[in-house]
Amino acid sequence: MIERISILGTGLLGTSVGLALRDAGFIGAITGWNRSTEQGQLALKLGAVDSLAADGVEAARASQVTVVAVPIFATLDWMEKLAPVLGPEQLVTDVGSTKRVISEAAARLFNTPERAAFLPGHPMAGKERGGAALADANLFRGAVWLFTDDAAARRSPQGTALVKEWRELVSGMGAKTLDLDPVRHDELVAWVSHLPQFTATALSALLEEEVGAAPELRDVGGRALREMTRLGASPYSMWRDIAHSNTEAIEKVLLALEQHLAHLRENLRTPELKNEFEQANKFRQE
Amino acid sequence: MIERISILGTGLLGTSVGLALRDAGFIGAITGWNRSTEQGQLALKLGAVDSLAADGVEAARASQVTVVAVPIFATLDWMEKLAPVLGPEQLVTDVGSTKRVISEAAARLFNTPERAAFLPGHPMAGKERGGAALADANLFRGAVWLFTDDAAARRSPQGTALVKEWRELVSGMGAKTLDLDPVRHDELVAWVSHLPQFTATALSALLEEEVGAAPELRDVGGRALREMTRLGASPYSMWRDIAHSNTEAIEKVLLALEQHLAHLRENLRTPELKNEFEQANKFRQE
Repeated sequence: MIERISILGTGLLGTSVGLALRDAGFIGAITGWNRSTEQGQLALKLGAVDSLAADGVEAARASQVTVVAVPIFATLDWMEKLAPVLGPEQLVTDVGSTKRVISEAAARLFNTPERAAFLPGHPMAGKERGGAALADANLFRGAVWLFTDDAAARRSPQGTALVKEWRELVSGMGAKTLDLDPVRHDELVAWVSHLPQFTATALSALLEEEVGAAPELRDVGGRALREMTRLGASPYSMWRDIAHSNTEAIEKVLLALEQHLAHLRENLRTPELKNEFEQANKFRQE
Repeated sequence: MIERISILGTGLLGTSVGLALRDAGFIGAITGWNRSTEQGQLALKLGAVDSLAADGVEAARASQVTVVAVPIFATLDWMEKLAPVLGPEQLVTDVGSTKRVISEAAARLFNTPERAAFLPGHPMAGKERGGAALADANLFRGAVWLFTDDAAARRSPQGTALVKEWRELVSGMGAKTLDLDPVRHDELVAWVSHLPQFTATALSALLEEEVGAAPELRDVGGRALREMTRLGASPYSMWRDIAHSNTEAIEKVLLALEQHLAHLRENLRTPELKNEFEQANKFRQE
């Protein structure tokens, strides 16, 4: 029975996890830690955590489950710090957007008979802006929450029970869980998450160059333009780690889109344009 | 005083114009014509028009204002048919997404002392799917309604009065009017409307190839993916005419995006990525 959870990083995702856990009926203790005191205090005020820890390692030591909710490279730092001080009766999980480097670190640092279990996780939910102020108990409702290396995390007897219970809490938050191999995970999210983001960033940056100086012309675009550039507001601070930890897969999908755009450009007046529209229509059919 | 309006083409835009005119308090007669009887009947049932004409030319002859609401090349066909039979006491306007070819045809066929006035128009509103069934009296509320060649359309004394009154009705529908040179119009909408559309089409078509066969993986993308591919549902039938009548401007903007994506791809691990995100953030700041 999980009675004590710590959340390291009370930004948008960490704070939303706390709120969603409460909504799902979790009645145990939730301790929060955040680099910036302000975001921590906000999570406390919102009821996402019921206490704040000055020391994240101490908070994790006192918890059965620790949720690391910070960018990828900061997650790797936490893994290095937590692995030596936690034991096999504890579970660590994360919410990072790429899983290969996290899974490699987990295999090296966790999931042995003497050490804590580590379950790499990735809720496919977020907003174009971060911070505890935007946290939402319903953020994960209807979203997919991906896991990798479930079997490795279950290796110790407590690992199995903790992983099972954490997955039930995730389902309780309204998310659908799905297991993937970590390399396959990173290839897949490059297509369905990183490509849309980098496309919106490139489109927004280009339009800033072209029509940014004339706000009245920006209004002309209407809903379609607003929607296609909403993700343009996403912060570099989060996407830098994703770009660094999934570079090859992202290079591949960006090149594929460049080629697809060129193909479309070369066929604006040929019947091939019809095929492109029909294939696009098909993606939106169901 | 405009007392009789005809709408040639009662699809999404034509039917929405009828509904919005009623909402704006227009109490005159509105006659509809549509190639497919079914869409015409639907517009009638929705109250967007109060009668249907079997012959669009006859409907236009009996109206002070004719709104042509069909794709670009069909609009050019109507202009050829209407110009010889209408007189200087009448106004024709359209809602087509490109304006250069329409403006050229207007200069050739209308706006002389013996002929009707023609005011090229372009409401920046629509949906990813067409048809009278999706029509909405509020479609133009808050949207920009672009005009080109206002001065030419005002040349005859009746032209001035009719153009003024039509523009008041457009404002009454909740749209903000803006005047542009037709060539500048086509360049601008290539950036803020055609580029977002063709990007969504290319992205959707590419994703259909890559993950289309596995619907469970499509769900993984969440809101960002759904939003960035919504316009993927847009019909070829409408965009073909846009691609054909604004080819050079669209080629230019697509090439610019390809280059921007390549630049981003080559800088996934360099500090330049930060500049790209910051420039994109700037576009979304106001």
